[in-house]
Amino acid sequence: MIDFRSDNTGRAAPQILEALLRANHDTALGYGADQWTASLQERFSELFETAVRVFPVATGTAANALALASLGPSWGLVYCSDVAHINTAEANATGFFGGGTKLVTIRGNHGKVDAELLAESLAGIAPGQLHRGRPIAVSLTQATDLGAVYTLAEIRAVAEAARERGLRVHMDGARFANALARLGGNPADLTWRAGIDIMSFGATKNGGALCDAIVVFSLDLADALAVQLRRAGQVWSKMRFASAQLIAYVENSLWLQMARASNKVAARIAAGLRDIPGARLVAPVEANEIFLELPSATMDALEADGFQFYRRSGTLTRFVCRFDTAEAEADALLAALRRHLDPAAAPRAAE
Amino acid sequence: MIDFRSDNTGRAAPQILEALLRANHDTALGYGADQWTASLQERFSELFETAVRVFPVATGTAANALALASLGPSWGLVYCSDVAHINTAEANATGFFGGGTKLVTIRGNHGKVDAELLAESLAGIAPGQLHRGRPIAVSLTQATDLGAVYTLAEIRAVAEAARERGLRVHMDGARFANALARLGGNPADLTWRAGIDIMSFGATKNGGALCDAIVVFSLDLADALAVQLRRAGQVWSKMRFASAQLIAYVENSLWLQMARASNKVAARIAAGLRDIPGARLVAPVEANEIFLELPSATMDALEADGFQFYRRSGTLTRFVCRFDTAEAEADALLAALRRHLDPAAAPRAAE
Amino acid sequence: MIDFRSDNTGRAAPQILEALLRANHDTALGYGADQWTASLQERFSELFETAVRVFPVATGTAANALALASLGPSWGLVYCSDVAHINTAEANATGFFGGGTKLVTIRGNHGKVDAELLAESLAGIAPGQLHRGRPIAVSLTQATDLGAVYTLAEIRAVAEAARERGLRVHMDGARFANALARLGGNPADLTWRAGIDIMSFGATKNGGALCDAIVVFSLDLADALAVQLRRAGQVWSKMRFASAQLIAYVENSLWLQMARASNKVAARIAAGLRDIPGARLVAPVEANEIFLELPSATMDALEADGFQFYRRSGTLTRFVCRFDTAEAEADALLAALRRHLDPAAAPRAAE
Amino acid sequence: MIDFRSDNTGRAAPQILEALLRANHDTALGYGADQWTASLQERFSELFETAVRVFPVATGTAANALALASLGPSWGLVYCSDVAHINTAEANATGFFGGGTKLVTIRGNHGKVDAELLAESLAGIAPGQLHRGRPIAVSLTQATDLGAVYTLAEIRAVAEAARERGLRVHMDGARFANALARLGGNPADLTWRAGIDIMSFGATKNGGALCDAIVVFSLDLADALAVQLRRAGQVWSKMRFASAQLIAYVENSLWLQMARASNKVAARIAAGLRDIPGARLVAPVEANEIFLELPSATMDALEADGFQFYRRSGTLTRFVCRFDTAEAEADALLAALRRHLDPAAAPRAAE
Repeated sequence: MIDFRSDNTGRAAPQILEALLRANHDTALGYGADQWTASLQERFSELFETAVRVFPVATGTAANALALASLGPSWGLVYCSDVAHINTAEANATGFFGGGTKLVTIRGNHGKVDAELLAESLAGIAPGQLHRGRPIAVSLTQATDLGAVYTLAEIRAVAEAARERGLRVHMDGARFANALARLGGNPADLTWRAGIDIMSFGATKNGGALCDAIVVFSLDLADALAVQLRRAGQVWSKMRFASAQLIAYVENSLWLQMARASNKVAARIAAGLRDIPGARLVAPVEANEIFLELPSATMDALEADGFQFYRRSGTLTRFVCRFDTAEAEADALLAALRRHLDPAAAPRAAE
Repeated sequence: MIDFRSDNTGRAAPQILEALLRANHDTALGYGADQWTASLQERFSELFETAVRVFPVATGTAANALALASLGPSWGLVYCSDVAHINTAEANATGFFGGGTKLVTIRGNHGKVDAELLAESLAGIAPGQLHRGRPIAVSLTQATDLGAVYTLAEIRAVAEAARERGLRVHMDGARFANALARLGGNPADLTWRAGIDIMSFGATKNGGALCDAIVVFSLDLADALAVQLRRAGQVWSKMRFASAQLIAYVENSLWLQMARASNKVAARIAAGLRDIPGARLVAPVEANEIFLELPSATMDALEADGFQFYRRSGTLTRFVCRFDTAEAEADALLAALRRHLDPAAAPRAAE
Repeated sequence: MIDFRSDNTGRAAPQILEALLRANHDTALGYGADQWTASLQERFSELFETAVRVFPVATGTAANALALASLGPSWGLVYCSDVAHINTAEANATGFFGGGTKLVTIRGNHGKVDAELLAESLAGIAPGQLHRGRPIAVSLTQATDLGAVYTLAEIRAVAEAARERGLRVHMDGARFANALARLGGNPADLTWRAGIDIMSFGATKNGGALCDAIVVFSLDLADALAVQLRRAGQVWSKMRFASAQLIAYVENSLWLQMARASNKVAARIAAGLRDIPGARLVAPVEANEIFLELPSATMDALEADGFQFYRRSGTLTRFVCRFDTAEAEADALLAALRRHLDPAAAPRAAE
Repeated sequence: MIDFRSDNTGRAAPQILEALLRANHDTALGYGADQWTASLQERFSELFETAVRVFPVATGTAANALALASLGPSWGLVYCSDVAHINTAEANATGFFGGGTKLVTIRGNHGKVDAELLAESLAGIAPGQLHRGRPIAVSLTQATDLGAVYTLAEIRAVAEAARERGLRVHMDGARFANALARLGGNPADLTWRAGIDIMSFGATKNGGALCDAIVVFSLDLADALAVQLRRAGQVWSKMRFASAQLIAYVENSLWLQMARASNKVAARIAAGLRDIPGARLVAPVEANEIFLELPSATMDALEADGFQFYRRSGTLTRFVCRFDTAEAEADALLAALRRHLDPAAAPRAAE
């Protein structure tokens, strides 16, 4: 079996689990008042070149929903892509943690929020109107849920459209490492310097194990969020074991190495697809995910070959590369696709 | 420094972290559809001698609040001790996750819900009345928040009073291992056979690291709870790393060994206190916690000696023993208390 | 000024206010335990030819949101038209009262939910999946928010698609009287016999004053809803004054007389529009609302003439007829439209 | 039958219903954008001698819960008397509308919050602590739920204790008119000048019909509250009919005349009770309610005589006077009590 189902089916980076083990000595105050969590604040503040507050949380859903809930009142409207994970796959955690917050979808290319369409949608809501609720935030998914990556200019354009109407900006960075690896540059430019107030900082999908984090750039949000997290059951009493993982995740650029690895193997597949007729990408492969239109019979054939992947619909598949996906696995997939889709490439039975 | 602050300041059992590491191979489906989580269901069903559903969660607060929210509508009344953790220390997570659930406190000895007072309180609410909300559940904390342990008869009496009025019964088992170690017997008798519908199964305070669990005995509750947990950000995508810890926790009676160890050193302190004038226990020491009234000056003196503990008020202290608290640490505490409280025991300066 | 802004800008029927006054004698138990509220139950049960429970509420928003919240857990998905009032104009009351309930929009003609598209959307959600939440209900707006009316066959088709997947069916009957007046037949056929479980029974827009109602057909829903209404601040202590209004509303077919009157004048306008070039209806005029595409300059001209109406966008207007809108007012509107839109009809300046 | 059950069993003042009728002419914009609601703002601003915002709402429960929800985040703690209506009789609407807000009870005389006990309770919560939630407000019930009235000095003392810790102050003025009639002085002194930020302004219990109001003194709270009210289903589209009632309520001091009338007859009963052995008042009669300890047999006897009242427990009764309770009804009650309780007063059968 060769597994392209998801980046959450994979192993954790050994360095992360070893860091967890190394934290298992002596006693330490609970609920984040320990030295590892203090170090975490420092490391991430260095990483982002500004003072940030970092809150480890159990899952990306918790990170997203609680970050968004911190951005405004419960009658808030949060704008996001129609394919955003918060809209399609988190059982409306945003509505729940927000106390009735509503998601409003904005279209755009490849899972992005289009800045102009956002501005247009906001222009349609008169300030002070009561009947719709109040626009409070926009959420960008970086990399997007179709495997594309916002450019710096695109992030800035969305953030500017938001700020002109007083909205806050959230980044769902479940695959932020993949986006950063793609774009190069530094984390600060792609986040707070571009107008991001708060971000869900993903680790799980990129070699993490049991924690992600919320990174707060607009520090006025942090104290209230701390209480909300406590109430939401997201503050581990033995927080050190989470903080130690997150420190290890960014130590020595481990996170970027892993993201580069998964991006690279995804790019290898994308490159190979160019020569294969009948396999259409629905979005450019800019991170570690490949969304591919395939005939249903080809899907069956791939599964019969032992490939694992998700069927998004009768004609759409998703293949995800993990940090430890091997080039050989990519090549095997390409060979199989070629075999099933390209008649010319098929071995002739009669010869 | 000798640390009696809490059982969450301590290390995790090495066996638990090793199990986490051993789970780090190959790929596995996310969100609990892995073999470790399947095994977890089996192990706990064996442990409790009945089919149960087990949901790993990040924290005890999440376990309590989400378990309680599963027991009835959002206008529910949940009865608990006035000193229950859910009432005093979880930032009203029960009210939040329940959508407005209200806690009603019932007095009793040493942090217990008194069955007769519960029945009396319930008798004061006419069925069908609208103005108060609707009684839906009672929550028992085992061991209690004052370090005492419900006997089997006491659990049954509370459960019976609850069931007579159609209420469900929840056990906050953050220190269930300590209670079980104290009472002997088996987990089934002390839970579902005594009338418990759902329990928060604690591991963190007894040598765990990053997860506790909800154990569902009344299986009609489980499917809805599963969706609620997903929405609540409590379903890890790499669930195997949580399930592996919980399996290791109960493997070879590890959990009971650890609970016996912490209980034993607490009992050693309690025994030693009998001879020390001026140190009054506010509840019997039946698990791993000691609630001790001390003069404020004695608290200062203990801290100067390097002892760490919590001051609950100007006159009340809490000392908690962990699975790895040494007998020597207990003896040092007793010696210090004797030194500060017993004039007869004090070395005479003049001699 | 001639007012076509909304059916909520208008007067109340004198008969309704007189009934309120007539109820002002003697004392009566509070919170609905009075004889008027008891009579209300009987009258509506006769009206709908089955035992129903009727709960007066202050507003249509309360009726919709609380009715929907009664249909399933807080992680529910409620399907509705993209132009439904609950989706566009109630500040996400559904999400708030539901504790995070999410609205999912289904397209259809003229503000209707299309039964086939609903079935298709439901087919895309596997039973037991956790990530999206759980489909619990569909909400039909009768008449629709574009002034059209579901036929009996259309209601049945939607209800059937819903029931096949275990969903409940809600009708937002803010303008139910107008729909009934249009379709003829009886209230029972168009509601519970067609598969409706619960309805928001509007009065305010059709000559009412300060109350609407929730009518419960599936009686298993009623007891819980009663508590929820109490908690939601929707149970008047002097309920008799609301119940008396609702009784008067249906007495002697007052509601249908008023609905027929407003429908008739809307139909008169629609008929007149056929001869006017440049005025395009976006939906058939089947109740008391007219959605008309007009050039922006024509809107300005109408306003200069003293007509009041809503601009839905730069090209779309809404004109609403009330029970007391005069035929002369309709004719004046048609004359003005003709004047502004039909060059041939314009008086020649030179003559 | 003579009805002392509640002030919500009674009639409405004819002047209020007549005002409602007088508002029934012409058209007016919906949702509070009408001239009556504009006048209401002016009248109440004059009444309170400062610019206020007034929001009509359907019920006192809505007023209380939504006012409190406007005072802080959903993890807030709201302090109130243990016998406060919000704590005992509103099905935890405060917890629901607040998204998990928790009520914390403070004892005091006769249903009051004691300022010193409040200060003490607040002193026990360290600023910045996470585990309990955050103190955000205190709620005073004026008159109290035991029929007593806070003096100006008492209001100030509570408000000061609250403000020292940054809490906001809410007044549940369901019977504010009765308190004002008792104390004399002006509404401003007893509210915002004494430190009240927001109040529930009751009308229903004092001759109103279908609406109460929220009066906002701290205007920073008002805009958000307006959206929340819309979402909460408390903004009537035909708001004029509510606003007209509230204007009539305060016009020509109608509200105070009614309150003085109900207070006066309650005082007459209280005075008469002095001579009757065996009837013990549990609180001074300072408004229109009388809480009287009576033998159970006396309760039975009164009911047999045709008196209606509430039994709060086996030994406690409540008698409430309405604006139209006649002195003869009070005298009849006193005569009956004397007959049943005073053997000396009983007519001798043999004579």
